[in-house]
Amino acid sequence: MTTTLLTGIAELVTNDPSLGDGSPLGLLRDAAVIVEDGHVAWVGPAGRAPGADRRRDLGGRAVVPGFVDSHAHLVFAGDRAAEFAARMSGARYDGGGIATTVAATRASSDDELRALLGGRIAEMRAQGTTTVEVKSGYGLTVADEVRALRLAGEVTQETTYLGAHVVPAGTGRDDYLRLVTGDMLAACAPYARWIDVFCEPASPHAFDGDEARAILTAGRDAGLGLRVHGNQLSAGPGVRLAVELGAASVDHCTHLTGADVDALAGGTTVATLLPGVEFSTRSPYPDARRLIDAGVTVALATDCNPGSCYTSSMPLVMALAVREMRMTPAEALWAGTAGGAKALRRDDIGVLSPGRRANLTILDAPSHVHLAYRPGVPIARAIDGLS
Amino acid sequence: MTTTLLTGIAELVTNDPSLGDGSPLGLLRDAAVIVEDGHVAWVGPAGRAPGADRRRDLGGRAVVPGFVDSHAHLVFAGDRAAEFAARMSGARYDGGGIATTVAATRASSDDELRALLGGRIAEMRAQGTTTVEVKSGYGLTVADEVRALRLAGEVTQETTYLGAHVVPAGTGRDDYLRLVTGDMLAACAPYARWIDVFCEPASPHAFDGDEARAILTAGRDAGLGLRVHGNQLSAGPGVRLAVELGAASVDHCTHLTGADVDALAGGTTVATLLPGVEFSTRSPYPDARRLIDAGVTVALATDCNPGSCYTSSMPLVMALAVREMRMTPAEALWAGTAGGAKALRRDDIGVLSPGRRANLTILDAPSHVHLAYRPGVPIARAIDGLS
Repeated sequence: MTTTLLTGIAELVTNDPSLGDGSPLGLLRDAAVIVEDGHVAWVGPAGRAPGADRRRDLGGRAVVPGFVDSHAHLVFAGDRAAEFAARMSGARYDGGGIATTVAATRASSDDELRALLGGRIAEMRAQGTTTVEVKSGYGLTVADEVRALRLAGEVTQETTYLGAHVVPAGTGRDDYLRLVTGDMLAACAPYARWIDVFCEPASPHAFDGDEARAILTAGRDAGLGLRVHGNQLSAGPGVRLAVELGAASVDHCTHLTGADVDALAGGTTVATLLPGVEFSTRSPYPDARRLIDAGVTVALATDCNPGSCYTSSMPLVMALAVREMRMTPAEALWAGTAGGAKALRRDDIGVLSPGRRANLTILDAPSHVHLAYRPGVPIARAIDGLS
Repeated sequence: MTTTLLTGIAELVTNDPSLGDGSPLGLLRDAAVIVEDGHVAWVGPAGRAPGADRRRDLGGRAVVPGFVDSHAHLVFAGDRAAEFAARMSGARYDGGGIATTVAATRASSDDELRALLGGRIAEMRAQGTTTVEVKSGYGLTVADEVRALRLAGEVTQETTYLGAHVVPAGTGRDDYLRLVTGDMLAACAPYARWIDVFCEPASPHAFDGDEARAILTAGRDAGLGLRVHGNQLSAGPGVRLAVELGAASVDHCTHLTGADVDALAGGTTVATLLPGVEFSTRSPYPDARRLIDAGVTVALATDCNPGSCYTSSMPLVMALAVREMRMTPAEALWAGTAGGAKALRRDDIGVLSPGRRANLTILDAPSHVHLAYRPGVPIARAIDGLS
């Protein structure tokens, strides 16, 4: 196996507190990394680096774990720029616009969807994201949901069956629930790692607590891990249900009661915050500090989708987390890397220590603080060409 | 002269209401542009385009006028990431940190500053900016201010003498005022198009109304055009002074009285808003709608600088203008292009009609709305290789 030594790293964030400065970021200055066979073989001070077959000087830049975007809807066609512009002029978001995307997605060929998905993955990688979860949910027929998951599986192992995104127009609620937990689930499960549900009693299009419970239970019985869209538009039952059922993550968490926070603090479910949604829907942001102070594990993700948040930028999400949710730059980076990995129950990513995957993101900056200090500037990119 | 025909333009924003749809953006769909000798030779529907020597297909993207960033501080060394992190934890911004940048800038060689400046210009161009104003103001000695302007003049014709950025530590206020309006002005004027002053009675480091008037008057007498940093931290005298003296632009305009708005509406001074500053200092945003509704000409710029706003991203500034200041996507784009050109009193840029400069920015998107719809995503870049 060829080994590659990366030097010229002004700051290395490992997310391993046993390395470096002892902080949660496990931060080393003037560091080096050796990569072998796609994995980290060694990290430490540049002056103590062992030899390697190849050498690459990163010119005094910061290196951080590749961003883990644990919530994204990338298999779709069409855009909803007009809906966005209307919302910025005062229209309210309730998820109803999803039907527009469903129609455009169903009307597209496999190759069209594959090209759109591939373009989005490349766009994310160019902004530093090395792992992305991809949901179905714009098909809403058995064939279209299977197709979305099949295409998603070509680009990621983190595939999520979201037949329960909304009840499609023209279908009875009970009929659709039977389909989502029956034939559609059976057809989709072989292509999915996760099942997800948009649990939101405040939206006429989404699912209430009892419906969400039935969907998640059926998914679990089919061997899928659990994820929940919860508490986005109101303090509904999503968060407590997710914790009760042991979901890996409950995402949004914008409206929480004290009981919700207590449940999260006492459970194993990660709270994934998606502040790009609040930015793009002009909504109040989640209270990240309340969660962190209660000891809840917080992740950050984009929710990249054509309706409520069409950003693919993890750096913007981290900058918003600092500006709007008062997370520190270190907390934001951790949540967008190690936090995302926990939300996906992955221990091979999100941390840069020997044996983990060499998913490295380089910053055109000397420090991870620049992710928030330089908002909107494309300073992050995944390092390519590592073997 | 070689002519180049650009086709495959899904949407062309010309900012010429006599072209296209008659809106202020002068918008054409399925359009073409012919460029000759660095200027626009023809714009119109793709189906009616005349022949040209070369042809370039832009693949269904939008083309907009290159962004005009009419307020930036790019000649500096060092960074202030730690000050930013402290501010995000609650510290207040009052301009005092400028001294840190002054020390690092003075300690740098010409070549070091030239490399830093060149990197920032390249970074901006890669995000769609084709014209940038560059201020001095981190030298604050005669030699260091002249040097900053000489270096700025290597990359832009929009050079601004900002000796009156702050009173440097260790210098008496009256002594410094004499220098800024005397020997320093005389030495800098040959290298500058504009003079600017940080007029802010609320900051102990900046200049009050009488001082600002003396500085601007001296600059005008030396043949310089006038710009003002006004009303950033308080409803001070900056805006009314700028209008009274016929300044091209007064920048920030965060705290305005009714008299300020009336003055702007009755004068020729552009109000340049810098919402990246409010984002990066966690401050309330300017009331753009009040200005627009009063008939004031509004521009948008980055204020890219290491202290209060280290973004170089005009797309982020436009997205903030839509999200936080309730400008429409069209108003935001106009303000970041034609508005910036007016703030620099330029009629050769900011508009894409025959005879204007062919400063073209391409979007990886079908519409200008995506600049706000896709926040943080690097979809804009200046088109290179046009002769």
